[in-house]
Amino acid sequence: MSHTAELIAVGTELLLGNIANTDAQMLSQGLSRLGINVYYHTVVGDNPQRLQAAVETARARADIIITTGGLGPTCDDLTKNILAQCFGKRLVYHEPSARRIEEYFRRLHRGGEMTQNNYQQAWLPEGCTVLENDWGTAPGCAFEADGVHVIMLPGPPRECSAMFRYRAVPYLEKLADGAILSRTLRIFGRGESSVEAELRERMNQLENPTLAPYAKEGEVELRITARAPDKQQAAALIAPVEEEVRARFGSLIYGADVTSLEEVVLSLLKQRKLTFGCAESCTGGLIAKRFTDLPGASAVFRGGVVSYTDGVKRDVLGVPQALLDEFGAVSEPVARAMAQGARQALGCDLAVSATGVAGPDPDERGTPVGLIFVALATPEGVTVRQITSGTGRTRARTIAASHAFDLLRRYLTGLDLRLRP
Amino acid sequence: MSHTAELIAVGTELLLGNIANTDAQMLSQGLSRLGINVYYHTVVGDNPQRLQAAVETARARADIIITTGGLGPTCDDLTKNILAQCFGKRLVYHEPSARRIEEYFRRLHRGGEMTQNNYQQAWLPEGCTVLENDWGTAPGCAFEADGVHVIMLPGPPRECSAMFRYRAVPYLEKLADGAILSRTLRIFGRGESSVEAELRERMNQLENPTLAPYAKEGEVELRITARAPDKQQAAALIAPVEEEVRARFGSLIYGADVTSLEEVVLSLLKQRKLTFGCAESCTGGLIAKRFTDLPGASAVFRGGVVSYTDGVKRDVLGVPQALLDEFGAVSEPVARAMAQGARQALGCDLAVSATGVAGPDPDERGTPVGLIFVALATPEGVTVRQITSGTGRTRARTIAASHAFDLLRRYLTGLDLRLRP
Repeated sequence: MSHTAELIAVGTELLLGNIANTDAQMLSQGLSRLGINVYYHTVVGDNPQRLQAAVETARARADIIITTGGLGPTCDDLTKNILAQCFGKRLVYHEPSARRIEEYFRRLHRGGEMTQNNYQQAWLPEGCTVLENDWGTAPGCAFEADGVHVIMLPGPPRECSAMFRYRAVPYLEKLADGAILSRTLRIFGRGESSVEAELRERMNQLENPTLAPYAKEGEVELRITARAPDKQQAAALIAPVEEEVRARFGSLIYGADVTSLEEVVLSLLKQRKLTFGCAESCTGGLIAKRFTDLPGASAVFRGGVVSYTDGVKRDVLGVPQALLDEFGAVSEPVARAMAQGARQALGCDLAVSATGVAGPDPDERGTPVGLIFVALATPEGVTVRQITSGTGRTRARTIAASHAFDLLRRYLTGLDLRLRP
Repeated sequence: MSHTAELIAVGTELLLGNIANTDAQMLSQGLSRLGINVYYHTVVGDNPQRLQAAVETARARADIIITTGGLGPTCDDLTKNILAQCFGKRLVYHEPSARRIEEYFRRLHRGGEMTQNNYQQAWLPEGCTVLENDWGTAPGCAFEADGVHVIMLPGPPRECSAMFRYRAVPYLEKLADGAILSRTLRIFGRGESSVEAELRERMNQLENPTLAPYAKEGEVELRITARAPDKQQAAALIAPVEEEVRARFGSLIYGADVTSLEEVVLSLLKQRKLTFGCAESCTGGLIAKRFTDLPGASAVFRGGVVSYTDGVKRDVLGVPQALLDEFGAVSEPVARAMAQGARQALGCDLAVSATGVAGPDPDERGTPVGLIFVALATPEGVTVRQITSGTGRTRARTIAASHAFDLLRRYLTGLDLRLRP
């Protein structure tokens, strides 16, 4: 039987636009991977009547309701109270949760006072499955009533995400008849419409597993999802489709079930025990920033130079003034010299560079917005890739940084450095 | 009369978690500034029945419905069809919109074929106000029926945001009895709970204008909103409250109606005709990235060095090895030497540095996660600020970068460089 879930986010801060509902995105991704349909997201404020109305609407059209937020001590446990009431449950005091909350405070606040209102979080719907929260104070919970499964998760994204993955997913997996498995292949270097056009006929033929593309900041995710009596059989259904997709896109696929190009590069650099650095002009620090967003980057990353002027390119990176004069800062020879210069100045095994016009305006030589050169310097030499990102400053910068990581990935896996299958 | 708006986002990609509903956040902020209540956000897929159900629910509880998405040529103009149907309107062909769409294609695609389905976008509800789209192909529209105002905006965030600001806001302002004006003061260096505690009593007293705090990545926004017969009178209501708030928080307030610390710094640097550069360890490029996210940064930004190893700190920034050995990379003397070194190496008037432990693990000397030193080097000398960010790698990095911009801002406005009112 196929399940339908509805997400209800509780929080006035969402209605004021103080934060975006990223929990809904995270949960939707996870539910889609479990093969559970999501037809509606709803956001309500910290208001009992309106939350109740949203719950009544949701229970009429979904058999799984997942709430986020409204579990904290300052909001009077609004969500638990209303959901319990809607489904005719009493709240009961859950001693082990009270102890966990105390313990959490002891660990985090080293003796700081725990205010009494924190104990409210230990009141939970009678007979529920308590979802222990190792990432914050408010426990979540899950129960079934009138044929509807209700799951309540805390709102802060870090807690919500961990609670979903480690607490809600195991609960939801038990609801499924058999297993649902999905595998996501990530493609860099081919547009979404091109990937979709190439696969459209095949996607329409496939029923189990299904195959679906998702565009994401210059990349495309291809998700293969199979249903079967158990995980092994689901995996067996996925394998031939994955093989088929890999045959089409070859080395444009940079990973399966990975989160980003830079994550793949980090793990390859660690394996090969090589260090890396960068010289950035148009990306202005984005390559370094994306790489150092990853915990553990310091094992292989030596550093970067953001050279936003000819002077810095010349003095810090050693780019010859003659090259800058003859070809301009946005040129193949300067990209090459920047990568070589970074490799030398930073003392790293591999260095990438990016120089281009991110916009909004062309440079003083009239170089058009979106023209970018990305280079990789290795002990064997330098390779330059010329790209045209189209318009949009953020997009141009993001794509340029991704090309730099793609060059590194191809080099580290011994692939042809050109962007092709 | 006070208005209530409901937001309906249309798009299966939202229900699959492919993207977050950032349009809802942007619209909520804007509506809140106009004094319009928002009680619900709803997200539905590209499905006529479910969209219709969402519209029927919304019209029963709101007098303004704003939809986002579902206007493009590939989705069969789902949103316009359903909304027109729900409110008993026919769609009519709008010739000027067809010409605009053709024009948009000519400009962007330089002669590329415009497919016929693009003309669908020129069919609009009879008698509606057409909201011309200068940022994409699909026009928006607005109409009133049965006491409900319906506004349809395109989904892509860049288009949605511009269309709201330049097309929907003027329409909504006409609905208001009199004017609503708001002013947002941004505070750096004081936590949300502390700001709230300090203002709670005053906030409760105030009715017109209202005063409300919003937390945002280590900063607090204080929004003052007034209603009055016209804008001037509203401004006159805001002024004394702004003065009162400024008296409390003084120079912790870094701007009014600005978007970020770095934006303030960019405009101060331009005014003062000074250049800036940075040396980053724990922030790993984030300072440079945030600054170069701003169009026009190149007028004052010379560059940055991301020094993730002692070697780069020594060889590129000229930090004495003796300092690194004696105090370690995360120390006051090294932060100082990094800023001075960056100023020299990059040839800029002002340089900031950041060195600290972003986590997840302490450094090899046992320096705890969250301890960070941020420094500013100027022609007059160097100032170092020691901060403790608490846990969370992303948060630690964000806060460190913000402190660097705050030091620059204080220096450029001749303020005491210490973090105090």
